[in-house]
Amino acid sequence: MQQITRLDLADAKILLDGARAKADEIGVPMCIAIVDESGNLIAFERMNGGKVTSTTIAIDKAYTAAGAKRATHEYGEVSQPGKPAYGINSAIGGRLMVVGGGLPVIADEAVVGGIGVSSGTPAQDREVAQAGIDHFVAETRG
Amino acid sequence: MQQITRLDLADAKILLDGARAKADEIGVPMCIAIVDESGNLIAFERMNGGKVTSTTIAIDKAYTAAGAKRATHEYGEVSQPGKPAYGINSAIGGRLMVVGGGLPVIADEAVVGGIGVSSGTPAQDREVAQAGIDHFVAETRG
Amino acid sequence: MQQITRLDLADAKILLDGARAKADEIGVPMCIAIVDESGNLIAFERMNGGKVTSTTIAIDKAYTAAGAKRATHEYGEVSQPGKPAYGINSAIGGRLMVVGGGLPVIADEAVVGGIGVSSGTPAQDREVAQAGIDHFVAETRG
Amino acid sequence: MQQITRLDLADAKILLDGARAKADEIGVPMCIAIVDESGNLIAFERMNGGKVTSTTIAIDKAYTAAGAKRATHEYGEVSQPGKPAYGINSAIGGRLMVVGGGLPVIADEAVVGGIGVSSGTPAQDREVAQAGIDHFVAETRG
Repeated sequence: MQQITRLDLADAKILLDGARAKADEIGVPMCIAIVDESGNLIAFERMNGGKVTSTTIAIDKAYTAAGAKRATHEYGEVSQPGKPAYGINSAIGGRLMVVGGGLPVIADEAVVGGIGVSSGTPAQDREVAQAGIDHFVAETRG
Repeated sequence: MQQITRLDLADAKILLDGARAKADEIGVPMCIAIVDESGNLIAFERMNGGKVTSTTIAIDKAYTAAGAKRATHEYGEVSQPGKPAYGINSAIGGRLMVVGGGLPVIADEAVVGGIGVSSGTPAQDREVAQAGIDHFVAETRG
Repeated sequence: MQQITRLDLADAKILLDGARAKADEIGVPMCIAIVDESGNLIAFERMNGGKVTSTTIAIDKAYTAAGAKRATHEYGEVSQPGKPAYGINSAIGGRLMVVGGGLPVIADEAVVGGIGVSSGTPAQDREVAQAGIDHFVAETRG
Repeated sequence: MQQITRLDLADAKILLDGARAKADEIGVPMCIAIVDESGNLIAFERMNGGKVTSTTIAIDKAYTAAGAKRATHEYGEVSQPGKPAYGINSAIGGRLMVVGGGLPVIADEAVVGGIGVSSGTPAQDREVAQAGIDHFVAETRG
């Protein structure tokens, strides 16, 4: 048997709060998704004005980051033409996201979940996702 | 041109609150999804212990209720063998849900969104979805 | 944070061994799938002569049993015409299986994974899945 | 009529053994999939710590290699921008994998199956897949 640590709903809401606050600060309404360490959705918000297309994209960024234990922007780098993971972006029915905005959530060196953000530029999405994690770390570090 | 009235994120959270309170009361951790009148996801929560399979089912119940402007249990009735909508359950790649737990959210006689609940029995799911709507009506009726 | 107990690969092989032995005994080559508690595949075998169509069916039976924390044949009962969960079989893109042969794997009252079997009759599939669990319980009870 | 030579389950386990041993040696827990010459799954293992996203990717690498009778990294080369197979990576609903780690299994100059590996870098995945084939050749050459 394996023992796994996983985000619960209260944790997910802390991540949402941190991301939403940053999205408000930069003035970009976002879709924000939180998944567990297996990539299954725990919580989601589409802020007023968030993009319809970003609903799925945010969920899939979170899924990719948690399931692959890797930030989606890192996949963006290694999947450029000529790079080793070129073409990976269409894997898993297109769910594997290589655009920035998906980050694994890590606790005690284990991936416990993922956050995915979409509706802004990839840089904005990534900034907002990171803000969610920063807030989570600040709130839970004791 | 058409003018559309639609749930916003604050409304969605009121619906979530009402549903979650009922789920806590009956002791069944639920997946709860809120969509807008176009069927697109606004907010989602999987309570601790909610079923993984119910993640998609809750979202699709809400999508069906809002998009078809009809409670999912009503589809259950008309899709029985020999009835006019028999077989509709596999439509839209299986997204059209005919199991109870999806309800349209109505304001001023217009469908403004939908709520979908899954993880319990269909009767429990429906009760929890209705509690979300009841709470929303109570909070917003002025 | 939540603490989760999950099958590991060694556990999955014990489940496979028990199921395969029963399949050999009854003379029906089977597809056998083992998933973790989140429904993600850990191990799979298609015995020589196992059905091609049963590859996906076995995986989806295991997914359903683990994700919904329920034997698939129980879904078969409650999804008959006129019953509350009628029409659930096409949910999740058809992945939600209501045919016997999928069982949750339980340890210390928690679902830690699922086993799905397909290629025989549903009764045979269920018997083989149960044999996997019986073997697992016997091997791990200490 | 055609006579087809195809991997059986015992062959698949030899391929798994060879790949798993190499994965252990390089310290990267992998998802390993073995398919027959028609691309249908025979056996699969997700080693403890293998990535959730790699479950599907490993299966699809094996499917591509067997079905197209070609190593997936070769598709990576010919699908670069400006090359003849550009865009092929999204074919078949994204199942056609162009990232290294999928290899056809060949016997007497015929493709008899495929092996797909995922969770490491594409170079690691390819190395582990090749180790599976090397072990199979060593064990079966008689």
